[in-house]
Amino acid sequence: MTTPILTLGQTLLQRLDEAARHSEPGPGVTRLFCSDEHRAVLEVIKEWMSKAGLTAELDASGTLVGRNERARAGEKTLIMGSHQDTVVEGGKYDGMLGVALPLMALQALKEEGVELPYGIEVVAFGDEEGTRFQSTLIGSRALAGTFDPASLEARDAESVSLGQALEAFGGDPEAIPGLARDPDSILGFVEVHIEQGPVLEQRDHAVGVVTALTGIERHRLIVTGKAGHAGTTPMPGRRDALVGAAEMIVEVDRVLNATDDFVGVVGKLEVRPNAVNVIPAAVEFTLELRSPDAEVRRHGRDGILAACRRLAAARGLELDIELTYEAEAVDCADWLVDALEDACRACEEPAERLFSGAGHDGLAMCDLTDIGMLFVRCTDGLSHHPDEAISASDAEAATRVLMRFLAELGKCPG
Amino acid sequence: MTTPILTLGQTLLQRLDEAARHSEPGPGVTRLFCSDEHRAVLEVIKEWMSKAGLTAELDASGTLVGRNERARAGEKTLIMGSHQDTVVEGGKYDGMLGVALPLMALQALKEEGVELPYGIEVVAFGDEEGTRFQSTLIGSRALAGTFDPASLEARDAESVSLGQALEAFGGDPEAIPGLARDPDSILGFVEVHIEQGPVLEQRDHAVGVVTALTGIERHRLIVTGKAGHAGTTPMPGRRDALVGAAEMIVEVDRVLNATDDFVGVVGKLEVRPNAVNVIPAAVEFTLELRSPDAEVRRHGRDGILAACRRLAAARGLELDIELTYEAEAVDCADWLVDALEDACRACEEPAERLFSGAGHDGLAMCDLTDIGMLFVRCTDGLSHHPDEAISASDAEAATRVLMRFLAELGKCPG
Repeated sequence: MTTPILTLGQTLLQRLDEAARHSEPGPGVTRLFCSDEHRAVLEVIKEWMSKAGLTAELDASGTLVGRNERARAGEKTLIMGSHQDTVVEGGKYDGMLGVALPLMALQALKEEGVELPYGIEVVAFGDEEGTRFQSTLIGSRALAGTFDPASLEARDAESVSLGQALEAFGGDPEAIPGLARDPDSILGFVEVHIEQGPVLEQRDHAVGVVTALTGIERHRLIVTGKAGHAGTTPMPGRRDALVGAAEMIVEVDRVLNATDDFVGVVGKLEVRPNAVNVIPAAVEFTLELRSPDAEVRRHGRDGILAACRRLAAARGLELDIELTYEAEAVDCADWLVDALEDACRACEEPAERLFSGAGHDGLAMCDLTDIGMLFVRCTDGLSHHPDEAISASDAEAATRVLMRFLAELGKCPG
Repeated sequence: MTTPILTLGQTLLQRLDEAARHSEPGPGVTRLFCSDEHRAVLEVIKEWMSKAGLTAELDASGTLVGRNERARAGEKTLIMGSHQDTVVEGGKYDGMLGVALPLMALQALKEEGVELPYGIEVVAFGDEEGTRFQSTLIGSRALAGTFDPASLEARDAESVSLGQALEAFGGDPEAIPGLARDPDSILGFVEVHIEQGPVLEQRDHAVGVVTALTGIERHRLIVTGKAGHAGTTPMPGRRDALVGAAEMIVEVDRVLNATDDFVGVVGKLEVRPNAVNVIPAAVEFTLELRSPDAEVRRHGRDGILAACRRLAAARGLELDIELTYEAEAVDCADWLVDALEDACRACEEPAERLFSGAGHDGLAMCDLTDIGMLFVRCTDGLSHHPDEAISASDAEAATRVLMRFLAELGKCPG
C-alpha cells in the first residue's frame, strides 16, 4: 500500500476535514468559543503552525497566535488568519480556511526554501461568528486595541459569562488590553475566506480580490392598520397592514435591483393577529441594507424609507421605523488589493475585484492596520450550512496565489 | 324612587346585558356550547319565552325551543332565532340579539293584543361559532335533517367529545336525527343579527335586509424559493419567497378592490427561516375569498390564482395552492326579502339590501326552508369583541320592523 501524493489543495482539504471533526454532535460543524471543541482544534492548528515554522501561543483573548522568528524579534509583521468558531451546524470552511490556508502556504514556501524577510503571524481568533455570546470579534478587537471590557459580561445560554468562559479556557480577561499591537510594527492583515456568495461561481473564477467589507444597517418597521372581520368589512376603506407591508417589500426589492453595489432583504416578518379570516392589524418586519459605498447606502435607504412612508400614508396606515443596527463599510487597502491581484495574475489565476457582503475580522483589524482579503469560490455560494464546500483545485489555486503574494511582499515590503 | 319606563329598545339592551352576565370570567362574553354558562343563560331565555307566550323545551341537540300554541298544534310555523354561544371574549349581541329580539317583539305584539294566525318557534341554538368543538351549526343542522353523527366525535381542548358534552347537558345524541322538521310544516326561518360590518353605519341606517349569505373559500399557498446569505447573494438571480408572496398579496388586493361583491383577505402568513439576514426560503399564507355570487367568486378566484402562478414563475419560485375550505353562497328567499323590506318601509325605517359576508345558521336552515335575515347596525362594524355594541334606538327600530313583519305575515302568509 502506497500513500498517494497529494496536491497542496488536497492536503488543505484533508486538514480542514481533520479540524471539522472537532465539533459538537449533529450535522455540519458546531464549534463555539472557549468550548472543548475549541480547545481540541487548537491542538490541530498548533501542529500546522509547527510545520509552517511558527511558534504557537494562546493569547489572553483566546486567540492562538503563531509567529515566525522575525515576528518574535519585533520586526515588521504581516498578520494573516481568521476565526476558529462556527455558527450552529455550520460548515468546514467559513473561518478555518483562513487559518489553514496561510499555514499551508507558509509550509510550502518553507519547503521550497523561500525565506520571507519580514515577520509573520497567523492567528486563529476564538470568536467571530458570535454564536455563543452576543459579543463578537473579541480576538481581533484585542489586537486592534478596541476591546470593550463590557463584552466580558455577555452571557451564553447557560448564563456563563464570556469572562468566566475565557478564564476557564486559559485566557486572561484582565490582560486583554495589553494585547493591543503597535500599528507601526504591523505591515497589514490579510484574510483568506470563502466567498459565501455565488459571484465567483458565476465568473467561473477560483478566487477574487476583495475591495471592501460592506456597510450594513438594519431597521425594524411596524405597519399598523385596523383589524376587522374579513367577510363583513367592504374592501374600500380597509386599512390592511399586510397589504401595505407587501407594497413596501415589493418597492424595497425594486430599488435594490435598480441600484448597483446595494443589496438587502426583508428577512423577518410577523403578522398580527395572523388569523385566516381577520384583516391584519399590524405587521412588523426587518429591513437590512448593505453596500460597500456609504453614499449608495445612505441614498438608497433614504429613497426606500421615503417610499415606505408614502405607501403607508396612501393606505391610512401608521408606520414606525427604528434603526436597530449600523456598521460603516471598510475599504481594503489599495496596495493590498493590487498586490493580491498581481499575485493572481502571476499565477495565471483569473481574478476580479468584488466586495464582501458579509462582515469579517477585518472590521476590527482595520482600526490597527491595512486590510486585504482573498475570497475563494464556494459551491453554490453556500455557507453557514453543513453542505458548505470548496474544491481541491480552488484550494490549490488560492494557496498558490497567497504563496506568490507572500514571496512578492518579501521583495518590496509595502 | 320610581322605575323609569323603558322603551322596547332599552328593555332589549337590558335583557342582553342580563344574558351577558352568564359568561366565563374575563373581558367580554365567553359562553361555550354545553357549558355551565350555557345552562344558566337558558334559564334567562326561558323567562323571556314565557313572557312572549311560548312554551320552552330543550331539544336533543341542545337547542332551547319556544313554541306558541299553534306551533305545538302542528300548524304551519315560522321559525326565528339565532345562537347562544360566543367566540372567546366576544360581545353581547352576536347571536343573542337574534334570540332576544324576536321574543321582545312577540311579547310586545301579545301585549298589544295582536294574535298571529300561524305557528311560532323561537330557537336558541347551542352552537354556531364552533368555539368549543371543531363542529358547528349542530342545532340548525338537526332541524334541517342534515346533522352528521360524525360531528359527535369532535373533541374540545379537554378531550371531551361533543356527544359526551351534549349528554351531560341534557341532550340526547341518538335522538338528534328525529329532530328533523317536515319542510311542509315550516313557513320559513328568519334571523336577526348584528351586521358585523360597517355598511349600515356608512349608510346611516338602523337596519338592512340581507339578500344572501356569502359563499366562502379558503386556500393555503406555499411559495418556495431559495434561502441565502442576504449580504453575499447578489440581487439578480435571488429567489426570495417573501418578495414573491408580497407581489401576490398586492395583486389579490387589486383584484378584490376592482370587483363588486367580492371580498377577501390574506390574513395569516409565516416566513421561513424568518431571520433578519437570510433571504426567505419559503412563505406560507392563507387566502380567503367571499362572494354572495358563485360566479363572481369562481371568476375572481381563477384570476387571482392564475396571477399568483404567473408571479411565482416570473421569479423562479414554486407555488403550491391547496383549497382548504369551501362553502357555497345561500340566497335569502325573495318573498322574505320583500316582506322584510315592506316592514321597514311601513315603519319608516330606511333600509337597503346588503349581503352577509359572514356565515350564519341560515347556511344550515336553507336546506329545510326559505330563509330571511335582518341586520342591525353595530358600532364601528365591530363584532367578536368585548366592545361589540348596538344602540337602544337601533334595537327599538329593529324590534318594530320585526313586529310589523310578523303582523303582516299574519295577513297573507307566504
